[in-house]
Amino acid sequence: MADFFPPPVLPLAIRFDPHTALAEPSGPVVTRRISDLEGLFADAAAWERLRADGDPVIYSVASSPVPELARELPQSVTTIHPGDCGGEFFMTKGHQHPDPQGEIYLGLAGKGGLLLFNGERPDWIDMSPGMIGYIPPGWAHRSVNVGSEPYRFLAVYPGSAGHDYQWVVEHGMGHRIWRSAAGFELKSFGGSS
Amino acid sequence: MADFFPPPVLPLAIRFDPHTALAEPSGPVVTRRISDLEGLFADAAAWERLRADGDPVIYSVASSPVPELARELPQSVTTIHPGDCGGEFFMTKGHQHPDPQGEIYLGLAGKGGLLLFNGERPDWIDMSPGMIGYIPPGWAHRSVNVGSEPYRFLAVYPGSAGHDYQWVVEHGMGHRIWRSAAGFELKSFGGSS
Repeated sequence: MADFFPPPVLPLAIRFDPHTALAEPSGPVVTRRISDLEGLFADAAAWERLRADGDPVIYSVASSPVPELARELPQSVTTIHPGDCGGEFFMTKGHQHPDPQGEIYLGLAGKGGLLLFNGERPDWIDMSPGMIGYIPPGWAHRSVNVGSEPYRFLAVYPGSAGHDYQWVVEHGMGHRIWRSAAGFELKSFGGSS
Repeated sequence: MADFFPPPVLPLAIRFDPHTALAEPSGPVVTRRISDLEGLFADAAAWERLRADGDPVIYSVASSPVPELARELPQSVTTIHPGDCGGEFFMTKGHQHPDPQGEIYLGLAGKGGLLLFNGERPDWIDMSPGMIGYIPPGWAHRSVNVGSEPYRFLAVYPGSAGHDYQWVVEHGMGHRIWRSAAGFELKSFGGSS
């Protein structure tokens, strides 16, 4: 299996093809199925039906070999497949950085969005190819595919920022993103997570 | 004049058009003329002729409004114009990060290269649209336009890394990039800087 390069990391040319999910050279790849997103969608019955019906892959995260270590600046490409769970669009688990540091997402393909929440206030950025979403330090973030094709973005983040998924389980993300006649709509989080 | 946003920075959608040099919304823009690159090209007489003949702009750096502060992850777009100074391709001043941290360059347009030097060993990465050059902590870096069109790239770097231009004046970059029959060639730095 591909892995991160051990330090010291040497200068490196990395290609992220917007038409494929992999970096070249490639590092670790994480695949998240619907079963990995337990408790995150509002409709638990719809989640259970999807889990029982083949447990589909919701998204994958393909990293470059640059390691998640202090002073390094790793990158990854996330691909979220199109679809919904009881009307709520497929999305990432979402996380907060335990060591608060900024991150950027750069749209590569498809139509998505970046949902942000600082514990008090939610925010939303429409993402498309060429658009950068800036995630300031202290804002939890989740990506959502609101289109009918795979939504793909490049992430660049400080190697020491870390990932806290439990924060989102406990605090939510302020909003949920639902399929609607107009395409999608944001609704307040509610209590049904 | 556009400036960096004061902290706390809020979530932000930023567009970098590969066909223009500006971010939208835009932060500070730095313009470097040949007179700003004194002592960096090997051929001092050719440099003086260019300076006297209109002092052309060699490159510009257009930042987003994300500030160069600890914990933020600012970005900029650099455009290097095509041309050479006595056969040595137009290039950036080059710098080292006083606080050693990684940085990425993402090719947007044109044909360029990323010259790196850690004080002992030089390295070179061919850059084209879609290619990421990874600059590990501790490596000085300079960009070079080796084509006949503007070479443009997006930089993403930790806000606390800083810029030390004097390091390159004192240590050089290991190699110089010269126009050649095949396009370009790298030659050892030599003593004529």
